[in-house]
Amino acid sequence: MLGEYLENVHQNSPLIHCITNYVTVNDVANMLLASGASPIMSSEPRDVEEITSICSGLYINIGTLTKRGVRGMNIAGGAAERLGHPMVLDPVGAGASTYRTKTAMDLMESLHFHVIKGNISEIKTLADGSGSTRGVDASAADVVTEDNLDVMVQFAKDFAKARECIVVITGKIDLAADAERCFVIRNGKKEMGKVTGTGCQLGALINAYICANPREMLGAAAAAVCAMGVAGEIAWSRMEDGDGNATYRNRIIDAVYNMTGAMLNKCARYEIR
Amino acid sequence: MLGEYLENVHQNSPLIHCITNYVTVNDVANMLLASGASPIMSSEPRDVEEITSICSGLYINIGTLTKRGVRGMNIAGGAAERLGHPMVLDPVGAGASTYRTKTAMDLMESLHFHVIKGNISEIKTLADGSGSTRGVDASAADVVTEDNLDVMVQFAKDFAKARECIVVITGKIDLAADAERCFVIRNGKKEMGKVTGTGCQLGALINAYICANPREMLGAAAAAVCAMGVAGEIAWSRMEDGDGNATYRNRIIDAVYNMTGAMLNKCARYEIR
Amino acid sequence: MLGEYLENVHQNSPLIHCITNYVTVNDVANMLLASGASPIMSSEPRDVEEITSICSGLYINIGTLTKRGVRGMNIAGGAAERLGHPMVLDPVGAGASTYRTKTAMDLMESLHFHVIKGNISEIKTLADGSGSTRGVDASAADVVTEDNLDVMVQFAKDFAKARECIVVITGKIDLAADAERCFVIRNGKKEMGKVTGTGCQLGALINAYICANPREMLGAAAAAVCAMGVAGEIAWSRMEDGDGNATYRNRIIDAVYNMTGAMLNKCARYEIR
Repeated sequence: MLGEYLENVHQNSPLIHCITNYVTVNDVANMLLASGASPIMSSEPRDVEEITSICSGLYINIGTLTKRGVRGMNIAGGAAERLGHPMVLDPVGAGASTYRTKTAMDLMESLHFHVIKGNISEIKTLADGSGSTRGVDASAADVVTEDNLDVMVQFAKDFAKARECIVVITGKIDLAADAERCFVIRNGKKEMGKVTGTGCQLGALINAYICANPREMLGAAAAAVCAMGVAGEIAWSRMEDGDGNATYRNRIIDAVYNMTGAMLNKCARYEIR
Repeated sequence: MLGEYLENVHQNSPLIHCITNYVTVNDVANMLLASGASPIMSSEPRDVEEITSICSGLYINIGTLTKRGVRGMNIAGGAAERLGHPMVLDPVGAGASTYRTKTAMDLMESLHFHVIKGNISEIKTLADGSGSTRGVDASAADVVTEDNLDVMVQFAKDFAKARECIVVITGKIDLAADAERCFVIRNGKKEMGKVTGTGCQLGALINAYICANPREMLGAAAAAVCAMGVAGEIAWSRMEDGDGNATYRNRIIDAVYNMTGAMLNKCARYEIR
Repeated sequence: MLGEYLENVHQNSPLIHCITNYVTVNDVANMLLASGASPIMSSEPRDVEEITSICSGLYINIGTLTKRGVRGMNIAGGAAERLGHPMVLDPVGAGASTYRTKTAMDLMESLHFHVIKGNISEIKTLADGSGSTRGVDASAADVVTEDNLDVMVQFAKDFAKARECIVVITGKIDLAADAERCFVIRNGKKEMGKVTGTGCQLGALINAYICANPREMLGAAAAAVCAMGVAGEIAWSRMEDGDGNATYRNRIIDAVYNMTGAMLNKCARYEIR
């Protein structure tokens, strides 16, 4: 059951090194703290190697790239790899610009990420090296639906096999797959798309979960996706008249803060294909 | 009526490229999402041209300048101009330092902004190339009041005429003017000044409004100013004992999230001079 | 009584130049506004000298260092020193990496800070030039407790004497000391550690307090520490079922916004040793 993965995060309190965009970095930090993990941010090339060495995992998010930041990602990634730290790549906006696509592809080629997480546009971009992402959101033509689910599950497995990683594809239906198994997850609320950074928060959360559950990373990644979705549902149920996306943002983090393994077990909605 | 401009934002969901300061960038993103628009942030010179090309508008805010960021602004601005994208300049702190003043002046000289938005100290600085801004807030000696309103309205129109743009001057009374007409707006609450970034949020909101209403940019800019002010009023009315500026921040964004055209029509308080 | 120091912040509204990390910068800005002070952020080397010259104090936080940012810190620090502005150093993560430790040491050597504030791991690192900080949080082995309080009070006084500054050491028990006197402060809630940036907010708050009370900086620094702790207590008492660290973050800032001198006098729990 997925709740155990959550409890392991509470018990192990992994420290996650985040190299992430400046738009949502504060929410990423508070989300990690809410989950029972801890954040440390550093992207400066001369700082990242040591910082990563005192952490358990490395979360790389390309939301607002700088040249120095990319250098930092590569140095930190190399160190994390040598240390065997679980690493997550969040290729925000891959497909939206050549620089983002190329950076994500380069990172994926030169480092081994345990989990690559993106929306379908981003993951498709990584799968074929080009894309037509609409900004940082998935193209409308490109969503996982009940109709194309079989195809998408196979796509996820193929991607995971080719890249020897776990892939998480977020959308109305979320997928978390390795080469052989795919969690099809139906938690979450569409209104989460009105809060900036829920995707980034999820990326960091996945990293905390796989760090605390290194032997069952697929289950752990799926648990993180379910936890985020359940948090979105709980948070929405607490919304009052006049509340909007800013309050929703806070309530989602609050819901992760209060989530127990038992709650996750009860509310997670997924099947394995 | 101004409500129509708001509804056009809901319907068109413009994607706004923001090159903005790292202090308030998260709130800017959530404010755009609250309004029905979408944000994408990128300031890296090698990324900005393509990013701007997939957007509808470009918001430039000089709140925390870096050399590379300024280069990014110029490249993005050039691309946006070629594409005919509505552009807003938010000269945060112009007058507070030579570097800010010079950067704002240079941007204004080399690019054509559809709207320039600032407090009176910032706009006066741009009008005469120097200033005495107190930090990022307007000098006390320099506010738009009922007493000097005629002079200020004329100042706004003259600035708009000289720069062939719309100017928005924020303060206790807000002005939105082109060369011929000036909206004098009396929405908002003074407590909004206790929330960091309400000005930045307004700048981005104006950008969303003019993108969704390209043929009536003055009315659209005025509608955005009214919407922000009305949001401040609604948010304040929802404050409870013990709430302060952090809660107020959230409630302002929430109020924009829930605002309808009818509400804006009902609550907007303005005259045209 | 400490409440007077708070009221002086309300009356003087000091403008604080902050060179701080991008993770918690927004909360730092809102915390300063909540306290009655005002923030301005700038780290660009060519901007910082003039910005600092229009401010009352300079807050330097090394949470996310960049090479240019460090240059900015030195230039701003030199200018602030010439102008006699109260300066606070927040050596976030000193001990966690050589670069952070070295930068903090260098800043401490080349500039005179009126207050140096950190957790015990960070301050010990500065005291002996090395450390074993766990990320940005204090090592478990290294906390101020009732058992080691005498030793820690003496350590704080010795550090303050050696560095000719006030030192603030945060933890379960907070210490604020100069060479002769040490405030031992027992306000606050351990749950504040689940909110990113409460330490950064405190650093900036101390700066506002010492700027508004330049002749009694030790008392003012202690008052800021008490105010932050009391805010954490008030905020916690307002938490409802389902609330978590995101809501707590907002309520802490709200509590500072609403705090009066009388409330601080009533709730501050400290002794002087």
